[in-house]
Amino acid sequence: MTQSIEIICVGNELLIGKTLNTNAQWLAKRITALGLSVRRITMVGDDVDEISSAVLEAMQRNPRFLITTGGLGPTFDDKTLEGLAKALECKLEINEEAFTMVKEKYRKYEEEGKMKKGDLTPSRVKMAKLPEGARPLSNPVGTAPGIIMEHGDITIVSLPGVPPEMKAIFDGLVASFLKQVAGDVTYFEMSIEATGVIESEIAPLIERVMYGNPYVYIKSHPKGVERIPRIEFHFSTTAKNSGIAKKRVSKAFVQLSELIQEKGGKVKPIKTEK
Amino acid sequence: MTQSIEIICVGNELLIGKTLNTNAQWLAKRITALGLSVRRITMVGDDVDEISSAVLEAMQRNPRFLITTGGLGPTFDDKTLEGLAKALECKLEINEEAFTMVKEKYRKYEEEGKMKKGDLTPSRVKMAKLPEGARPLSNPVGTAPGIIMEHGDITIVSLPGVPPEMKAIFDGLVASFLKQVAGDVTYFEMSIEATGVIESEIAPLIERVMYGNPYVYIKSHPKGVERIPRIEFHFSTTAKNSGIAKKRVSKAFVQLSELIQEKGGKVKPIKTEK
Repeated sequence: MTQSIEIICVGNELLIGKTLNTNAQWLAKRITALGLSVRRITMVGDDVDEISSAVLEAMQRNPRFLITTGGLGPTFDDKTLEGLAKALECKLEINEEAFTMVKEKYRKYEEEGKMKKGDLTPSRVKMAKLPEGARPLSNPVGTAPGIIMEHGDITIVSLPGVPPEMKAIFDGLVASFLKQVAGDVTYFEMSIEATGVIESEIAPLIERVMYGNPYVYIKSHPKGVERIPRIEFHFSTTAKNSGIAKKRVSKAFVQLSELIQEKGGKVKPIKTEK
Repeated sequence: MTQSIEIICVGNELLIGKTLNTNAQWLAKRITALGLSVRRITMVGDDVDEISSAVLEAMQRNPRFLITTGGLGPTFDDKTLEGLAKALECKLEINEEAFTMVKEKYRKYEEEGKMKKGDLTPSRVKMAKLPEGARPLSNPVGTAPGIIMEHGDITIVSLPGVPPEMKAIFDGLVASFLKQVAGDVTYFEMSIEATGVIESEIAPLIERVMYGNPYVYIKSHPKGVERIPRIEFHFSTTAKNSGIAKKRVSKAFVQLSELIQEKGGKVKPIKTEK
């Protein structure tokens, strides 16, 4: 049984459609590849109550990890840590390690002439105020540190919303920890594209193949519209090693391909987007 | 007070990061432009219990509309209507109007030679089984109809996950209804880009300008990393007419621009992506 993860993405820009949520997709792909599974992704606005209630609801579903993105910066509407503290009923307090990280960043900006004066204004100190018990995760490409904290059996990780900062902290400090929890498992996926058949013709065949291959998940994705029949079939599995994973997927792939060909369809393997 | 909408996007492909959720962004942008506001976006997998619990949780927050995308097709893992029926404690039953729509589609596919035989297999009949009380929304570019139903004060709309189908049904049959509910309001937004300042310097200035312009929302988006100071400031408002909306945003825009220039920054208007 793979362990589950919930992702909460914070930001009004997501709710007005200004920003496409590439963070959620990037994280979901990475997490899946590490052998864990994302159970739910929630997007909320920059509002303490909304963040807090989304966190509480996610925690009630008892995921192994809860990862948030966004809302860690210096502006008044960066409210993720406040929302987290409210949900966990703890205080925000200046974390000395985080404070040193933030101070060090501004010292560097001054040195490089990127900034006029390095006053530790409230907006800057804010980024070092973490929920009690949280540890900061150093941000190699920006200012606001991420955080990690344990709450019962749930590990909570908060990452910045700026994609290069989010990715750098995840790859540098979070991924290895997730891999350790996932243990010795490999995720494997492949896709085929079928032409000359329509989705509703193949629907019962997918079910039949999945019944005979219980560890392989097959999903059909109609490309374009059903009147121009072009369907992607995506096969995926999580197994103890890549040999087993590939063998499982190949078996299901061959079986479904044969059934599609019997219906008069044509099949070719396609690359899945990386 | 703008009326709120929740969006639930259904599909395992979203949770494994195979698919970027462009549907959510497209809908959020359209809904915002119509003068309504999206409160939360939730992505869940193809699982009846997950869909049902996401629907129940959303309904408890009492949005004016609940819009779902995905999970309406012919395959075994298209489970949105089943999840909806479970949440609403009602049955799925063949809806005659939907059944006629589905039959008519397959008759056309046969005529056009896209399909060999038009048997109404269980996979196809499934698309016409709607929750009791739901009405179908005709799908001009695919097979599975959308649905619309009332539950207390909440209007529930389910749209297919294939983007051209989702967009066609929304624009053709849903948008005008939303506009009617939103009433006579206009959303207006604009962005400026500032260079030569860093986000934490401007954070208190945004707060000051927003305090003096209570109907304008300003959000800063650091582009790249803070060490290369380039920040987008996005201004938005919803007002009774576009004249008032533009005037409000312009006033806030001029005030913030002056404050940024006082700090030694440079400002230019930029196009927001459409």
